Amino acid sequence: MSEIVELTYDECEELLSAGAFGRFVLTRPTGPEIVPVNYVVAGEAVLVRTAPGALLDRYADGSSVVFEVDQVSYEQGHGWSVVARGRAERVTESQLTDEERRVPGPPRWVSREPESWIRLRWITLTGRRVGNGWSPLAEMPVRRVWR
Amino acid sequence: MSEIVELTYDECEELLSAGAFGRFVLTRPTGPEIVPVNYVVAGEAVLVRTAPGALLDRYADGSSVVFEVDQVSYEQGHGWSVVARGRAERVTESQLTDEERRVPGPPRWVSREPESWIRLRWITLTGRRVGNGWSPLAEMPVRRVWR
Repeated sequence: MSEIVELTYDECEELLSAGAFGRFVLTRPTGPEIVPVNYVVAGEAVLVRTAPGALLDRYADGSSVVFEVDQVSYEQGHGWSVVARGRAERVTESQLTDEERRVPGPPRWVSREPESWIRLRWITLTGRRVGNGWSPLAEMPVRRVWR
Repeated sequence: MSEIVELTYDECEELLSAGAFGRFVLTRPTGPEIVPVNYVVAGEAVLVRTAPGALLDRYADGSSVVFEVDQVSYEQGHGWSVVARGRAERVTESQLTDEERRVPGPPRWVSREPESWIRLRWITLTGRRVGNGWSPLAEMPVRRVWR
């Protein structure tokens, strides 16, 4: 049986930046919601695309949100999870910073036009993994290398 | 580019029942939280273990919660997600139903004693996938076969 190990900020940032798919968690008046989505990290912010009327478009702007990425290995019986916390904001293409504009966008699996961006400039970034003696980054199924 | 396709209830139940790792989403006074966790399905309920003082132990009982499982394939550029919604309840071993007691429990990656159970008898179960022409169940990395 393994122990839970806290990841350092740098480990969290590296794992979050290397990923491409995660989950936005927000609160609606009726309760919590989770939105699986492709994303990209630019500086200290998570960026995702959304479209008018979508949950993120309607409820994320100005709200306390959580963005989570994780990876598990059933064969090894271990995994990791990183969580970014902060306030989300809806931004238009013209409100993106130069760095945010230069980052190759999230993978597009679904076409949605028109679209806007949800930006989460995280306040805290924490993570944990199960067990020592293995490298979360080395076991990622995909890895963004642009920084 | 693909379209988003709604999954049927039966497809959602099959995918949720076959999985082993998912994410509990709940609301704390300070905002939303996400808890990655191993789980099992018994009847129309999600069951996870928790320990005194853990987030699930403190905030899930009696709350509107969401439980999510998903799987993505970066090579294929597609994925699926299933979400169970309802009110969570903390139950002791003796409060489990006969069926819930018979189900082999969630994988144990971390030792936590003592522990209690969080049960989510879902009210709604919905899901979606990106694109047609592929089988979410066939692409699962692990699959529980006990029913």
